[in-house]
Amino acid sequence: MPGSKSTAEQYADYKLKMQKIADVRNAIAVLGWDQETYLPEKGAGFRGQQITTLSTIAHELFTEEDLGALLQDLHGNPALDSVQQKNIALSLEDYEKNKKYPASLVAEISEATNQAYHAWIKARKANDYKVFEPALTRMVELKRKETAILGYTDHPYNALVNEYEKGANTTMLDTIFAEVKTALSPLLDKISQQSPAKRDFLHLHYDRNKQWQLGIDILKEMGYDMKAGRQDISEHPFTTSFNPLDVRVTTRIDENDFSNMTWSCIHEGGHALYEQGLPQEQYGLPCGEAASLGIHESQSRLWENNAGRSLAFWKFQYPRLQRTFPENLGNVSLQDFYKAINHVQPSLIRTEADEITYHFHIMIRYEIEKGLIDGSISTKDLNHTWNDYYRQYLHVDVPSDTQGVLQDIHWSHGSFGYFPTYSLGSFYAAQFFTTAQQQVPELEEAIASGNYQPLLDWLRNNIHPFGRYYTSNELCEKITGKPLQFSYFLDYATKKFV
Amino acid sequence: MPGSKSTAEQYADYKLKMQKIADVRNAIAVLGWDQETYLPEKGAGFRGQQITTLSTIAHELFTEEDLGALLQDLHGNPALDSVQQKNIALSLEDYEKNKKYPASLVAEISEATNQAYHAWIKARKANDYKVFEPALTRMVELKRKETAILGYTDHPYNALVNEYEKGANTTMLDTIFAEVKTALSPLLDKISQQSPAKRDFLHLHYDRNKQWQLGIDILKEMGYDMKAGRQDISEHPFTTSFNPLDVRVTTRIDENDFSNMTWSCIHEGGHALYEQGLPQEQYGLPCGEAASLGIHESQSRLWENNAGRSLAFWKFQYPRLQRTFPENLGNVSLQDFYKAINHVQPSLIRTEADEITYHFHIMIRYEIEKGLIDGSISTKDLNHTWNDYYRQYLHVDVPSDTQGVLQDIHWSHGSFGYFPTYSLGSFYAAQFFTTAQQQVPELEEAIASGNYQPLLDWLRNNIHPFGRYYTSNELCEKITGKPLQFSYFLDYATKKFV
Repeated sequence: MPGSKSTAEQYADYKLKMQKIADVRNAIAVLGWDQETYLPEKGAGFRGQQITTLSTIAHELFTEEDLGALLQDLHGNPALDSVQQKNIALSLEDYEKNKKYPASLVAEISEATNQAYHAWIKARKANDYKVFEPALTRMVELKRKETAILGYTDHPYNALVNEYEKGANTTMLDTIFAEVKTALSPLLDKISQQSPAKRDFLHLHYDRNKQWQLGIDILKEMGYDMKAGRQDISEHPFTTSFNPLDVRVTTRIDENDFSNMTWSCIHEGGHALYEQGLPQEQYGLPCGEAASLGIHESQSRLWENNAGRSLAFWKFQYPRLQRTFPENLGNVSLQDFYKAINHVQPSLIRTEADEITYHFHIMIRYEIEKGLIDGSISTKDLNHTWNDYYRQYLHVDVPSDTQGVLQDIHWSHGSFGYFPTYSLGSFYAAQFFTTAQQQVPELEEAIASGNYQPLLDWLRNNIHPFGRYYTSNELCEKITGKPLQFSYFLDYATKKFV
Repeated sequence: MPGSKSTAEQYADYKLKMQKIADVRNAIAVLGWDQETYLPEKGAGFRGQQITTLSTIAHELFTEEDLGALLQDLHGNPALDSVQQKNIALSLEDYEKNKKYPASLVAEISEATNQAYHAWIKARKANDYKVFEPALTRMVELKRKETAILGYTDHPYNALVNEYEKGANTTMLDTIFAEVKTALSPLLDKISQQSPAKRDFLHLHYDRNKQWQLGIDILKEMGYDMKAGRQDISEHPFTTSFNPLDVRVTTRIDENDFSNMTWSCIHEGGHALYEQGLPQEQYGLPCGEAASLGIHESQSRLWENNAGRSLAFWKFQYPRLQRTFPENLGNVSLQDFYKAINHVQPSLIRTEADEITYHFHIMIRYEIEKGLIDGSISTKDLNHTWNDYYRQYLHVDVPSDTQGVLQDIHWSHGSFGYFPTYSLGSFYAAQFFTTAQQQVPELEEAIASGNYQPLLDWLRNNIHPFGRYYTSNELCEKITGKPLQFSYFLDYATKKFV
């Protein structure tokens, strides 16, 4: 009889149930981390099965009728404080969304994803989009089905993007990407008239162990708590969190590419600082989770680009870097180094793109996704559609499907609506960083002397402790006084690159 | 309606349920492995909570009424083959045992264990048994309660030892330890009249990386599949298995003690070969699990001692070892090395004991445990009781509680009845190895040429593939034609040491 319990007891029950679910989900995250770092080759099959079992258990726990009743009971209860009310409201929202999925659809999506992933691998090997096309077609159909089940206003794509970025929609994205087009295109033209930066010294031989140590040093200097985390090597760098006291990053090292490890390290460090800064006492509850993917990405990009590719940052770091790699950088000036690491040039691969052209890559994916979901673009010959977009926006010819439509894993995972959060992350980062500069006058000077504490303090005061209490846009308004505005990024980019 | 399903369908349901439980338990094992190898310091608290949650889920799944009904339904069904029948019978036994524990007792034991563990840590730091005494007293009371719940014949200790070694009991253990006393004591006297072996060269400086590589090389040579496992560093060496295709070992390296890493590596390798040799298709089912702790230990000790401390083994390994550490071993003959690694001398610490005196350490723990459980020995002043035993059987004076009654973690874990399996392991190992020597005449010669395949083949044919199909004693009779007999160990020890 839930009615016979006090509000405090009911809330405690809710918390316990949610923490149990979080424990299972975080165990899955540990299994995933292990899979990417240390799993022996032959263990992959059983590991997949173990993860599926735990995922099913987590889903079962989060669709239990008892939990639903408890959430209904607590929803809007004025005896709860505002954080508690927010937790209940968000959990109820998540719960109801979860309940919408019929078990048959969950199984179908899981099966289709698995199939699409393998088709994507095969297609990449064959360098032939046709091999992926049937699986992608099925995936798009399922995603359209999903939009109908989830419900949406205005455009079916909104149902999907909301999964990653609550409140984002095609109206907002259309506006922002229109600005990308109208403002960044002329900027890009201007930049391409500059004399190209010398970059060859970034591709000399950089010793693996020295790179590793450099990454660790920078992470520590950023304020990443090594006693509540660790760095390992994996094929693709990522951040994973099991709770705010165990947040792990990975990196990869290419001995012939200095940039590869360095900025991936700073990028993942930004994600990790966010996770380490989430409130421990909210473990398992919405207010203990990241606000959104866009906000998460704003943290990684703020550190990677606004701080980590700034002249101030390297004023401090560069002399040490020269001492570490005197044979490569001894005769390279700070200015030349700075220019090299901020070189802008249209290219084919999103993950290797610079700060400006990156957003054209995202815009193309956004337009294609939107079209696939509303039916105005077909999966048939999507490689040609893709190549047309690249010719139009980036003026590059895509020589092969693996360098084109097959380059990203996302669609094979069924992650439609995810890409826009990358751009939103950069734009939030610019708006946040500008605000931090205004509010903390000594910020740049501190960064230039290797002291990142003022920046971290600002983030720890303004962003990290709130979890999902505010939506991305509420958070942005709260911090900067304005909703997300592209102009911050444009100002930042113009100042930096022109 | 289970009745409407065919036997094959019911068995498939059973298998699916058991594999789900196994997935959860193996996820716990991964969390445990991570805890001992890579977990950042601050992550320990949340990790404990995550493990508790998954343990509760595993327990809930393994006490579900549906599973019980299914097992009852399938039990004794003649349409099942003999392996299937055995699986059902053993699962039903495990299930019924699990059901006997009231949830309140499970929680009480879990809480008491946690408390006892911390009291043990504290007592060790203070070097004072009194600090541990109250927690141990409570633990013994709970264990006595457990024996009443589980039920037993003859002696309450039988209920506990059966948890680790089905079929073992005080009658059998009393007999075997009486033989230890009457036969090993005079043997020990004889050995102590020999001139002591020179051992100082084992404690020179042995480079960490070279030791690591030596361990890896030996593991590979033993036949441990590195693509279905890996070695890492931990404070205490252990083996853990998530399935036969992911069996991991750990080791530790002391640069001033050659023996430490080497034989722990071979020992864990023996455990790991057993786990890698269990039948994959029985994953999650009793016939996919190790027969017992005694049989598991027989595998590690057979490799560590019967093979790994034999003259034949080092005939091949020693020249390479001399080349790796010429500064330490260049002038040490194989004979002197062999003597040094087989030096027998009564000592205080079980884990550092030689092959002979080791069993006195176990006998003491066995006699104390039995007495604590039947009430003939009190936890009051147990340190003095302990020291009296050591004076009587090993003729050594225990200078402090940490080197005495506080040295082992087992009692703080509530693991009463576990210790005897260590001795049983050695005795099974002697009986198995002697049989293998008789059945494979070229065995010793192969070992002496660094070829361990004939030994592994024999184990893979006779022991590994059966899982829990046979009990320890059934297995022993099947392989050697006789039940466990101490005489095999005595013969082995006499031949080797006198």
